[in-house]
Amino acid sequence: MTRETPLPDLGSIEAAAARLAGAAVETPLLESGDLNAQTGGRVFIKPEMLQRTGSFKFRGAFNKISQIPAGHKGGVVAFSSGNHAQGVAAAAQARGLPAVIVMPADAPAIKIANTRGYGAEVILYDRYREDRERVAGRLVEERGAVLVRPYDDADVIAGQGTIGREIARQAEAKGVRPEIVLAPCGGGGMIGGCAVALAALVPGVKVYAVEPAGFDDTARSLAAHRRLGNAPGATTICDALMAAMPGQLTFAINERLLAGGFAVSDDEVRAAMAYAFRVLKLVIEPGGAVALAAVLAGKLHLRGRTAAIVCSGGNVDPATFCTAIAPPVGES
Amino acid sequence: MTRETPLPDLGSIEAAAARLAGAAVETPLLESGDLNAQTGGRVFIKPEMLQRTGSFKFRGAFNKISQIPAGHKGGVVAFSSGNHAQGVAAAAQARGLPAVIVMPADAPAIKIANTRGYGAEVILYDRYREDRERVAGRLVEERGAVLVRPYDDADVIAGQGTIGREIARQAEAKGVRPEIVLAPCGGGGMIGGCAVALAALVPGVKVYAVEPAGFDDTARSLAAHRRLGNAPGATTICDALMAAMPGQLTFAINERLLAGGFAVSDDEVRAAMAYAFRVLKLVIEPGGAVALAAVLAGKLHLRGRTAAIVCSGGNVDPATFCTAIAPPVGES
Repeated sequence: MTRETPLPDLGSIEAAAARLAGAAVETPLLESGDLNAQTGGRVFIKPEMLQRTGSFKFRGAFNKISQIPAGHKGGVVAFSSGNHAQGVAAAAQARGLPAVIVMPADAPAIKIANTRGYGAEVILYDRYREDRERVAGRLVEERGAVLVRPYDDADVIAGQGTIGREIARQAEAKGVRPEIVLAPCGGGGMIGGCAVALAALVPGVKVYAVEPAGFDDTARSLAAHRRLGNAPGATTICDALMAAMPGQLTFAINERLLAGGFAVSDDEVRAAMAYAFRVLKLVIEPGGAVALAAVLAGKLHLRGRTAAIVCSGGNVDPATFCTAIAPPVGES
Repeated sequence: MTRETPLPDLGSIEAAAARLAGAAVETPLLESGDLNAQTGGRVFIKPEMLQRTGSFKFRGAFNKISQIPAGHKGGVVAFSSGNHAQGVAAAAQARGLPAVIVMPADAPAIKIANTRGYGAEVILYDRYREDRERVAGRLVEERGAVLVRPYDDADVIAGQGTIGREIARQAEAKGVRPEIVLAPCGGGGMIGGCAVALAALVPGVKVYAVEPAGFDDTARSLAAHRRLGNAPGATTICDALMAAMPGQLTFAINERLLAGGFAVSDDEVRAAMAYAFRVLKLVIEPGGAVALAAVLAGKLHLRGRTAAIVCSGGNVDPATFCTAIAPPVGES
């Protein structure tokens, strides 16, 4: 992975799409009259919570894992706060391979339960005291397993990039051409893959990363033209987007292809989750809602423009969801 | 409406589909690996909460209202517990016609607010002491308005029937043929329209009505071969499905075309809403969840079968939704 890994291109995304056909869901491209009216533009929604495992992560995991020989005894290992865990577990299960997932002990209960539900062995670690890469590395060595990184892997990026390919093709089928695409950004694999596909299929489109405030390492790194980490101690309800800094491979792509980034607050995220409940009728988890939050909070002008936003997942505990859609009395 | 109204046929549904093109959402046909695994069959979901106004009702309302001359000053009048209200209000707004909606004072707040949000005038009545048809009839007379009935109207039935047409065409595009279709049933307009389309496009398909326990007038009427009302005093959380007895027109269709009916309890409905939250990532209101509830509760055997279920709406108050997905501590 470290040296001379070729960056994914449209060809590797097309190959990923061929592998994913029949295994992943081709999520629809939705449009909401209310969202159009609010923005003054046309805003399409790519609802990846409808993807297998409830988030886009199945795409990258399956693209990687489906290239492992079926009889591989060591199986796969991954570390993840949750959605990548479920994606890897389900992809391994689909291919008949054992999977061990290293997850933080404070990950949402629904994500841990679902990962186990896909047949994976879950090993919990302390997010603040242990190094998940070291825990996973030990497992790779002991078991002879293949490590499936959450974002800094060309096959994973290409798999996530099938979202961008679908947006381009589905928009074309509707007779529209997106000028702007916004997507959530953690380590940057999904938006990087999308940017590769979109740059090739919709030349001139502007692709923006959206991150939680305090975890806007990609936006700041893009501005600084070098990889910057986040200040320690920041918190966010977006458990899926807490990567410490941009990936090496993902930043090489994103520096070249992204138009910039936006950061959104927890309150803006909760408002977007409530909007999705009330108007879109979709269940969105905090990290999955940041691009929608950026649009609803007016971070960029969409009047007269055609845009697409990725809502990347819906794996959220009922309590977190209900706090967003029905704030306790006395709070707004 | 009363005498010799021709029953809707595939031609009137095709005409409705042409009117709805570009105005209504062609909702996708979704499939869930988890639901397939649970049932042992293939179960497709028609998610009408993604329809304009958050329920299928826009289809029938728009098909009716788009045939009213644009300059018609009296506008339209409707009575509805909520979803038809929103459908009529939005359809009238789209056509530039004034709308007055007669709604029960205890309808979900979100439905009343949304109806006003679509520009309609809302008149509240007491569900237990006033006759909504009489209130609406007076308005029709005073204002010279066109009454848009919630189900017992050939144009409304044909509009709702476009759901069945889409199921048939979308299934065909996926290379599958539904053997069984289940849909929620209140007055019977939606399932009647669907049955007309499906009988023509997928000969041999069995179409079942699903109703809340205590409001299973259609199932009992089908068994008795005559229209029966519900016993007074019954309650249900399915506010959208509280019709007192089958419609005249709808029962004439449904008696001929439906294979039967199922009834589901409030607990089965809440379990289906929670499942949709947790697995499907869709917001379903109680009345919209009855067909899914019937499948999850094992009311019919789907092992090895291909089925489609209509999830008809998602207009639910946060409190009701949260009680279903996160029961208060101490309850199951």
